[in-house]
Amino acid sequence: MAIHPVIMCGGAGTRLWPVSNQACPKQFHRLVSDKSVFQETVLRFAGQPGFHPEPVIISNAAYADLIAEQLAAIGVTASAILLEPEGRNTAAVAAVAARYLAGAHPGGLGLLVPSDHFIGRPDTFLDALRAAAPAAQSGFITTFGIAPSRPDTGFGYIQAGSVIEGPVARVAAFKEKPDAATAAAYLASGAYSWNAGIFLFRPETMLTELAAHAPAILENSSAALAGARVDGACHYLEPAAFAATPSNSVDYAVMEHTAHAAVYAPLDCAWSDIGTWAMVAEVSHRRNAPPVIEIDTADCVVHAADGQLVALVGVDDLIVVADGNRILVTRKSRSQDVGAVVKALKERGLKDFL
Amino acid sequence: MAIHPVIMCGGAGTRLWPVSNQACPKQFHRLVSDKSVFQETVLRFAGQPGFHPEPVIISNAAYADLIAEQLAAIGVTASAILLEPEGRNTAAVAAVAARYLAGAHPGGLGLLVPSDHFIGRPDTFLDALRAAAPAAQSGFITTFGIAPSRPDTGFGYIQAGSVIEGPVARVAAFKEKPDAATAAAYLASGAYSWNAGIFLFRPETMLTELAAHAPAILENSSAALAGARVDGACHYLEPAAFAATPSNSVDYAVMEHTAHAAVYAPLDCAWSDIGTWAMVAEVSHRRNAPPVIEIDTADCVVHAADGQLVALVGVDDLIVVADGNRILVTRKSRSQDVGAVVKALKERGLKDFL
Repeated sequence: MAIHPVIMCGGAGTRLWPVSNQACPKQFHRLVSDKSVFQETVLRFAGQPGFHPEPVIISNAAYADLIAEQLAAIGVTASAILLEPEGRNTAAVAAVAARYLAGAHPGGLGLLVPSDHFIGRPDTFLDALRAAAPAAQSGFITTFGIAPSRPDTGFGYIQAGSVIEGPVARVAAFKEKPDAATAAAYLASGAYSWNAGIFLFRPETMLTELAAHAPAILENSSAALAGARVDGACHYLEPAAFAATPSNSVDYAVMEHTAHAAVYAPLDCAWSDIGTWAMVAEVSHRRNAPPVIEIDTADCVVHAADGQLVALVGVDDLIVVADGNRILVTRKSRSQDVGAVVKALKERGLKDFL
Repeated sequence: MAIHPVIMCGGAGTRLWPVSNQACPKQFHRLVSDKSVFQETVLRFAGQPGFHPEPVIISNAAYADLIAEQLAAIGVTASAILLEPEGRNTAAVAAVAARYLAGAHPGGLGLLVPSDHFIGRPDTFLDALRAAAPAAQSGFITTFGIAPSRPDTGFGYIQAGSVIEGPVARVAAFKEKPDAATAAAYLASGAYSWNAGIFLFRPETMLTELAAHAPAILENSSAALAGARVDGACHYLEPAAFAATPSNSVDYAVMEHTAHAAVYAPLDCAWSDIGTWAMVAEVSHRRNAPPVIEIDTADCVVHAADGQLVALVGVDDLIVVADGNRILVTRKSRSQDVGAVVKALKERGLKDFL
């Protein structure tokens, strides 16, 4: 009853410009350590008792080479690399992953996990996954609720209901990103946790629930996998079927409808979605980072490409990111607005700098 | 009685790092316009009535190629390019220039002028030089006093004495860089102006005064020119003789001792020594500058190399300079401290970033 990590690495955001972009998004960069965030995610499970040694990778076909290179560099072999011709959100990912695992690894559990998160206490994280396995085995799709450390309005929340066993409870409700007052009330109540977008399940459970609540997603995704062109570990999903797959999140398509939603909470594993440069700075521990010269500065964060040097004179509270020909300077408190740079670049036709 | 511009371009400072460095100092960069500061200085005199069409260039031999390229790009031929094996300060420059002009262009006037200053009203500047020519012709070494616009403590001052003719007066005193209170008193009095380091003189006058007050400088400099290896317009000063030349400024070696010092003042020609990035920003009018993305920013200045893009989010009052692999971020009010970066780079052995 091994847990099969299914590592989702197809997305690309804009708030970590200039390092993260469509061509090489966040997860493939050495943001936090001397390995990429994707490599750190893969290695988190490698050789750990209870986890299958060969993860499943699911991503966009554009990243096939990046994935192969980065897996080779850490000596990990994938069970399969499932490659989408285009993004169809996480419900399609769950469908393809469940279908693949049900065929290739019957009897295992699937663990859908984002590739672009930081986890400061991996042992706590792995213990939680193992502790949630019996509930998943018994037919629950188990999510993981991060213990909130602040009234954050940037995450969805999970409200825990009646206890199933230990820290695993039925889900009482999924909550959209709240306003500040609601987030404060959630934090005070203790019954709400951050939805980390991690799911542990029997593949058969996921397939049954998709069939019940999102049949078009299941049918088209399944057809795309069945018709995939296979090249070594790579499965290139059949484009026409995948294009016909409705785009929806697993939360909306399945979790809000199923009677079998569970949550492990609170999970206190020093988790961060490292969604902004300020968050990256909080957890980064790169060694051999490029040099920085600071003259009379305070509370600044610098992230530079190899071979680039940043000098700061008489400034404070700044984030400076240098990535070759693209340089970002922002106040720490404004790093969530970096996506506006990408928007402006597109509007001005400055595609070379995206 | 043509005026022969002698353009001094051998120096290299540190406050305009990362653009200006030993390999290619300030004057050879397009800081203010789409031409280099050196080219702007040369072109200021080109084709102007009263000025010889072929300037004299005096610099370090290391910059021979840069000078040749930049002169060719603007279609100017030099009368001579006098190349020092090492820097010996401005008295040696004055000696070599005067000796060269006395031999090559007898009867002309020499105009010693820095290559790295900005002049916003060149016509006013040129008119002042022409107006000072009779005094120079009659045997005065005439300096030019910039009308002070603020109580600046970063310049030497010239105190004007008895009037010779019009705006040209005898020099009552040269004053070292003053403290703030003294600078304020100078500004209030109206008799003091900034020493711009510009000198107009008969070459014979300069040679006579050097012989009287700095004979070792004159003798060795003269020997270095007499023994120079000549290659086209380039005169490579003889190294041994030039090395034996004492290093001193023309102010200390000659001007403070001669009875023939005059000053044209006030010269109100929108002059700036563009010594810091803040000063560069005040006068810069580059066209076709690389693009900048600004989101919620105010009062920021960006100077980037071709092909580099800087994005600012939620910051104000910053100077950001990107020059390939070297990036500077400083508060405007601190740009005079940028030299500390160069010092730190040397101390840390980071020579690649100088």
